[in-house]
Amino acid sequence: MTFRTDIEIARAAQKQPIQKIGARLGIPAEDLIPYGHDKAKVSQTFIRGLEGRPEGKLILVTAINPTPAGEGKTTTTVGLGDGLNRIGKRAVICIREASLGPNFGMKGGAAGGGLSQVVPMEDMNLHFTGDFHAITSAHNLLSAMIDNHIYWGNDLGLDARRITWRRVMDMNDRALRDIVVNLGGVANGFPRETGFDITVASEIMAILCLSEDLADLEWRLGNIVVGYRRDRSPVFCRDLKADGAMAVLLKDAMQPNLVQTIENNPAFVHGGPFANIAHGCNSVIATRTALRLADYVVTEAGFGADLGAEKFFDIKCRKAGLKPSAAVVVATIRALKMNGGVAKADLGQEDVAAVKRGCPNLGRHIANVKGFGVPVVVAINHFAGDTEAEIAAVRAYVAAQGAEAILCRHWAEGSAGIEDLAHRVVQLAETPSMFAPLYPDDMPLFEKMETVARRIYHAHEVIADHVIRDQLRAWEAAGYGTLPVCIAKTQYSFTTDPAILGAPEGHAVPVREVRLSAGAGFVVAICGEIRTMPGLPRTPAAEVIRLNDQGLIEGLF
Amino acid sequence: MTFRTDIEIARAAQKQPIQKIGARLGIPAEDLIPYGHDKAKVSQTFIRGLEGRPEGKLILVTAINPTPAGEGKTTTTVGLGDGLNRIGKRAVICIREASLGPNFGMKGGAAGGGLSQVVPMEDMNLHFTGDFHAITSAHNLLSAMIDNHIYWGNDLGLDARRITWRRVMDMNDRALRDIVVNLGGVANGFPRETGFDITVASEIMAILCLSEDLADLEWRLGNIVVGYRRDRSPVFCRDLKADGAMAVLLKDAMQPNLVQTIENNPAFVHGGPFANIAHGCNSVIATRTALRLADYVVTEAGFGADLGAEKFFDIKCRKAGLKPSAAVVVATIRALKMNGGVAKADLGQEDVAAVKRGCPNLGRHIANVKGFGVPVVVAINHFAGDTEAEIAAVRAYVAAQGAEAILCRHWAEGSAGIEDLAHRVVQLAETPSMFAPLYPDDMPLFEKMETVARRIYHAHEVIADHVIRDQLRAWEAAGYGTLPVCIAKTQYSFTTDPAILGAPEGHAVPVREVRLSAGAGFVVAICGEIRTMPGLPRTPAAEVIRLNDQGLIEGLF
Repeated sequence: MTFRTDIEIARAAQKQPIQKIGARLGIPAEDLIPYGHDKAKVSQTFIRGLEGRPEGKLILVTAINPTPAGEGKTTTTVGLGDGLNRIGKRAVICIREASLGPNFGMKGGAAGGGLSQVVPMEDMNLHFTGDFHAITSAHNLLSAMIDNHIYWGNDLGLDARRITWRRVMDMNDRALRDIVVNLGGVANGFPRETGFDITVASEIMAILCLSEDLADLEWRLGNIVVGYRRDRSPVFCRDLKADGAMAVLLKDAMQPNLVQTIENNPAFVHGGPFANIAHGCNSVIATRTALRLADYVVTEAGFGADLGAEKFFDIKCRKAGLKPSAAVVVATIRALKMNGGVAKADLGQEDVAAVKRGCPNLGRHIANVKGFGVPVVVAINHFAGDTEAEIAAVRAYVAAQGAEAILCRHWAEGSAGIEDLAHRVVQLAETPSMFAPLYPDDMPLFEKMETVARRIYHAHEVIADHVIRDQLRAWEAAGYGTLPVCIAKTQYSFTTDPAILGAPEGHAVPVREVRLSAGAGFVVAICGEIRTMPGLPRTPAAEVIRLNDQGLIEGLF
Repeated sequence: MTFRTDIEIARAAQKQPIQKIGARLGIPAEDLIPYGHDKAKVSQTFIRGLEGRPEGKLILVTAINPTPAGEGKTTTTVGLGDGLNRIGKRAVICIREASLGPNFGMKGGAAGGGLSQVVPMEDMNLHFTGDFHAITSAHNLLSAMIDNHIYWGNDLGLDARRITWRRVMDMNDRALRDIVVNLGGVANGFPRETGFDITVASEIMAILCLSEDLADLEWRLGNIVVGYRRDRSPVFCRDLKADGAMAVLLKDAMQPNLVQTIENNPAFVHGGPFANIAHGCNSVIATRTALRLADYVVTEAGFGADLGAEKFFDIKCRKAGLKPSAAVVVATIRALKMNGGVAKADLGQEDVAAVKRGCPNLGRHIANVKGFGVPVVVAINHFAGDTEAEIAAVRAYVAAQGAEAILCRHWAEGSAGIEDLAHRVVQLAETPSMFAPLYPDDMPLFEKMETVARRIYHAHEVIADHVIRDQLRAWEAAGYGTLPVCIAKTQYSFTTDPAILGAPEGHAVPVREVRLSAGAGFVVAICGEIRTMPGLPRTPAAEVIRLNDQGLIEGLF
C-alpha cells in the first residue's frame, strides 16, 4: 500500500449523507439540522423525546501520560467505535470538537488518524458548526456587560480590581494575555487590567459541556461569579441580567453535532473544554443522547488518565450520574520507551529494557482507573517500527497488573485491526459497573485536592499558602464546598514538573492559585504554570496554510 | 386584522425547504450547502459554472437621510422583490447580513418588517451561517501574526507605533476601543497601544464584499497594509504570509447565503460592511450570482442615498462593472415631517406644511441619483397615520422633480401592496442603463472627495490640513491614486453635523483623518466623529433577551 497522509485518507472517504447516518440511529431527517451534507445537529425536540429510554454502556478511552511520540487516543477511540460496529454492536463515538486557533500555530488536526478518523476533517478543524464561535460571543457579551455596567454607574458595586471574568478569542494570541482596557477618556470608561483566554478555556465551554439541557445551561450561566465587591461578596452573571441573552446565543451550540467515521459509523463531536483548568471531555448532552441511541458509546478524556480520566470520573460522571462500564488505556511502544528514558530521535531502535522501564507509568494509570471501580484493558496502538519483543514485554507487564494488553492495528487497517479489543471491551462491560468517584461530595475542598494528589499522582503532600486555604474556606462557607475539584497541572507527568516521566512517588503538589467555576460547578486548583492563552511559534503553521488550485486546503494538517 | 409584531409574522411564515427555493432558480440540491432546513450557501462550483450567462437588471433601493421615524428601506427592498415576483418577473433580493453585537444594545432586527420580511429572522440576527465569525477569525489571525512577528524579532521592521491593523469583535464593547496589549513581561511581548473595532468595520468585511472569487479574495487580503516602518514604507499582509490562511478561514464565508421571503421568494443575504468607513452593501458575488439567475435583482445600500447610493455606484458598481437599471428612493411621510422640523413625539398629527418643508431632502437625493444616469422612482412607504393631503403633497413635489412617487403598502399587505411600484420599476428598467460613476479613476484623491462633497452634499469646500493632503499625495505616489474614495460621515445629514436636516447648501466638509483600505480598494475620508466600536446603552437590550418556556427567543426584536 502506498503511504497516504491522514488528510488524503479523509478526503478519499466515501461519506454517506448525514441523514443516512442519523437514520441508523433512529433520528428522523427533520430532527437533523444539517450543516452541509455531512454534518448535522440533533434537534432539542428529538433529544427531549429520548428521556427515560434505557441507556447503553459507556466506554472510556484514556491513555498514559502524553509524550512527543504520541499515543493515539482519539485514533483509538474512533477505531474502537468502528471495531464495535464491525462485530455487530450498535456503537456511537463521542469526542470533543477541535479549537480553531491552535491550528495556525503548530497543532495538527484532531479527528483521529490513519483509517480511524472522523470526517469531514477540514471542517472539524475550522469553523465546524460554529459552536466555539457561539461560546466566544456569549462569553464576550458578559464581558461587555460588566464594563458597561461600571461605565453607567456601577450600581452593583463591582471592585474593578477584583473582576475575574476576562474575555476570550479562539486564537493563539499572546499579545492579549495581559491588557489594559477602557483607555481613551470619558467616553470609553475606567481603565483596568484584564486579558483574553483562548475560547476553550472559557467557563462557558465547561458549562455547555456539563449542562443537561437549555434550562440547566441558563441556570448555570446565571451562577457564574464575574468578580467581587470591595467586601469580597460575589457578583453573579445573573446580577447583570446577562444569562438570558447568553443562553440565546448558545441555543444552537447546545445541540450535539453528528458526523461519521471513514467507515460510516456515527460520531457525536460536541464541546471541547480545556483538560487542565476544565474537565476536558465532550458534552454531557452528547454522551447522554448517544447512550440512549446505542448499545455502546465510546468516548475519550483529554491528556493522560491522571488528568483526563480522573476528571471524567470525578466531575463529568459524578455530576451527570454516568456509570462507565469499562476503560481502555492507550499506550504506544514509542511513548513507553520515552517514559523509559529514550530520546525522541532514538525511538526507531528496538529497546526492550527501555520499554520495561517505561511500563510503570502505564501500570500507575491501570491501577488508578481500577481504583474507580472500572474494569480496564490496555490498547497498544501499533506503530510500524514496534518489535515483537517490545510488544511481548508490555503484554507481560500488563498481565502482571491483572489486566490484558491488546495489540491494535486500526490506524493501518481500520476496524479489522481492532476486533480483539472490541471483543474484550464487550466482555469487560458485561459485568455490572462498580464505578464510584474518588471522594465524597462533602469532603472539604483542600482534602479533595489532597486525595487526588495522593491517590492518583502518588504525591506526598499538597502545598498551598494561607491565602489559598482561606479562599477555599470562604468558598465552603458560601456553599461551594460540595463541588468537585479540577486540578490544572502539566499533562506530561504525575508531578507538576513536565520533565519527570515514569511513575514518580512522594513529590509535593504546589497549588499556585485557586479559581471558582461556580457556573460549571467545580473549583480549579492551578499547580504550576498553566497558560490559558497560547502564543504562536516563530514560524506559525498559518504561513503555509492556503487554498490550492483545486480549492483544497493545504498546510492545515 | 389583529396587530402582529414582526417576529410573530416571521414565525408564522410557511417556509419552503430551501432546496425548493433554490430549485426555482435552477440551483440543484447538491449545490446548495444547507445550514438548517431554511438556509443554504450556494457552492463555488455552481457559481463558477454561471460565468458568461446573461445578467438580469439591477435595481437599487435607497432612501432619504434616515431619521428616528424610520424609512423602511429593507422592508421596501423585500417588498419590491416580492412585488416583482407577483407580477410575473423572476426576481431575487440581495441584502446585507446583520451584525450580531448591536442586537444586545438597542438595535432591532434587520430583515425587513411587516409582511415584507426575509426569514428565518432569528437566525439572521444571531449567528446565521457564521460568515461574520469567519471574518472575525481571519481578521484576528492577522492581528496575532503581527504581534507574533514583532515578538520573534520583527524582521520586517514594523514600527509598533504605526501599526494600523487592529482587532475586531462582533460585540458592542466600548472598553475595547482603546487598549494596551502585550503587557505582562518578556513572555508576552512589547507593550503597545491598539484597539478593537466591531467586525462589520473590518476591512476584511469590505474585501469579502468586493471580491469576485476566492482567488481575488486572497489577492486582496495580501494587499492589506497592516502598518508602516520607521521610513513610512508599508508592510503588507502578504509580507507576514497571513493571506493564505485567512483565505482558508473565509472559504465558506465567500459563498452567498440563500434564504426566502415570507412569500417564499428567493433572497441572497451576504456580507455586511459598515456604510461609513466602508461601502455598505451586500457582496459582489451575491449580486452577480443573483443577476445570472434572475431577470431582476433588487438590492439596497446602507443609510441615505448621499452615503449609500453614492458608494454603491462609485465603489461597488465601478469596481464590479455593474450597471444599475433603476433606483427606488424610499421615503416616509413621518421622516419627511422630521426633515421639515417636526419632533418625533408630534409625528402623529397631520402637518402638510412640514411635509413640504421636508421634501427638499428627498428632492436632493432624487437629483443625485439621476446624476449617475440611473432612472428614479420614489416609494412612499405607507404608515397608518399618513393622511391623503400629506401623500398628495409628496406626489406633487416629486412630480415637479420629474419623477413619480408611488404609495406602497407592502408592510401591511405584502406584494399585493406594492404592485404599482413593481410595474413602474420594470418600465424604468426597460431603457438601456446610462449609468456612469461620479468621477473618473484618474482624478486625484482629494479632488474625488471634493467632487462628492460638492456634487452630492452640496458643500462649499472640503477642509483638510497638510498632513492629510501629504498622506493622500504619498498614497498617490505609491500607486493608490486610482482608488475611489469612501466618505465616512454622519448618515443623518448632508453635512457632517447630524442635527442639520433638510437640504443644506454651502457647508464645509472637514476631513479629520484618511485611511487606506488597500485590500478593499478605496481610501476612507473620515469627516466628523465616526465610531467603529459601538457601546452598550445604560439598559442593554440583552437584559431582556431570553428563551421562553417554548424555547422561543424573546426580547431580540
